[in-house]
Amino acid sequence: MTATTDRPARNGVDVPNLFATINAVKGTPELAKFQFRASNRWLEGTHSRTVIESFNGAGGSHSHTTAFQYDADHPAVLVGKDEGPTPVEFLLHALGACLTAGIANVAAARGVTLTSVESTIEGDINLLGILGLSEQVRNGYERIRVNFKIAGDAPAEKLRQIVEQSRSRSAVFDVLTKGVPVEIAVQTP
Amino acid sequence: MTATTDRPARNGVDVPNLFATINAVKGTPELAKFQFRASNRWLEGTHSRTVIESFNGAGGSHSHTTAFQYDADHPAVLVGKDEGPTPVEFLLHALGACLTAGIANVAAARGVTLTSVESTIEGDINLLGILGLSEQVRNGYERIRVNFKIAGDAPAEKLRQIVEQSRSRSAVFDVLTKGVPVEIAVQTP
Repeated sequence: MTATTDRPARNGVDVPNLFATINAVKGTPELAKFQFRASNRWLEGTHSRTVIESFNGAGGSHSHTTAFQYDADHPAVLVGKDEGPTPVEFLLHALGACLTAGIANVAAARGVTLTSVESTIEGDINLLGILGLSEQVRNGYERIRVNFKIAGDAPAEKLRQIVEQSRSRSAVFDVLTKGVPVEIAVQTP
Repeated sequence: MTATTDRPARNGVDVPNLFATINAVKGTPELAKFQFRASNRWLEGTHSRTVIESFNGAGGSHSHTTAFQYDADHPAVLVGKDEGPTPVEFLLHALGACLTAGIANVAAARGVTLTSVESTIEGDINLLGILGLSEQVRNGYERIRVNFKIAGDAPAEKLRQIVEQSRSRSAVFDVLTKGVPVEIAVQTP
């Protein structure tokens, strides 16, 4: 890893700082423990709003530069008012954005300058599950496909390896493909 | 199900339309096949932008009322510029919003008027995984906790059952807890 710390910033990635961060965490593994959070409030019908504002990690508490707000809803065809995308569409956003951030970091660390990274992320879902009309059909996506178009100053094979390395270290890819335990607690008046 | 079709609209949920939709799908299961999609474009560093605009389902193509746009980034402490939440935070938003939409629908179908539904969604992640510093630590969240505060014109036990029914039919809960196959294709110039 030390061999690559003399890489300059590239693709808008501060490579020296990225390696300094990795080395700091290597020395003090406790810094790697993060907790992300969001708070959601029901508005009306299937419409709700989430605020994403603070998180813990690297041994401290942090605030985002702003309190990010996102609405979600169901579309008219699913008896909502389309005040935002459906919750399942945000999963596709999370996946595309996670893989893409990784691609930029990995490319920068490997000395590759990217010119463009675009992706489409599609999820197939059969609503017989969530509508309670079939016990054989799962509630969630049956499969997700991601199609990347990537260009930069490296041969095709090297660009593909960058995508593959991003996939192998993607937090969202890991959660979506392997699942994670979710606990739900309920407080009533 | 027929017994509940005389329920009026409630919680902003058009209950007659909801049951009419379920009955239509029951008669023509092909209508239940949906495909959601998003397109993401890398901007700089770990910053990318996703557009969520159209989807297929109920036998046709649909456009959202607007082309929804979302940015994602890494925060400064993770060598980004914090132009948006991290991708993993959008997973928390998706989960809270999906469970909450289900709660509103289920409550309406059961004749319960809600006064408030709030939740906090927390995810614990150890970055030793994505930083490549440990093969024992996974890349994604180790666990997620959702805490609901729910109030309405029903006893606590009935409110809890509504949350439980929403959980049992949540598309995002299903994907996050059980995982889904994800295929990645790469196109180079």
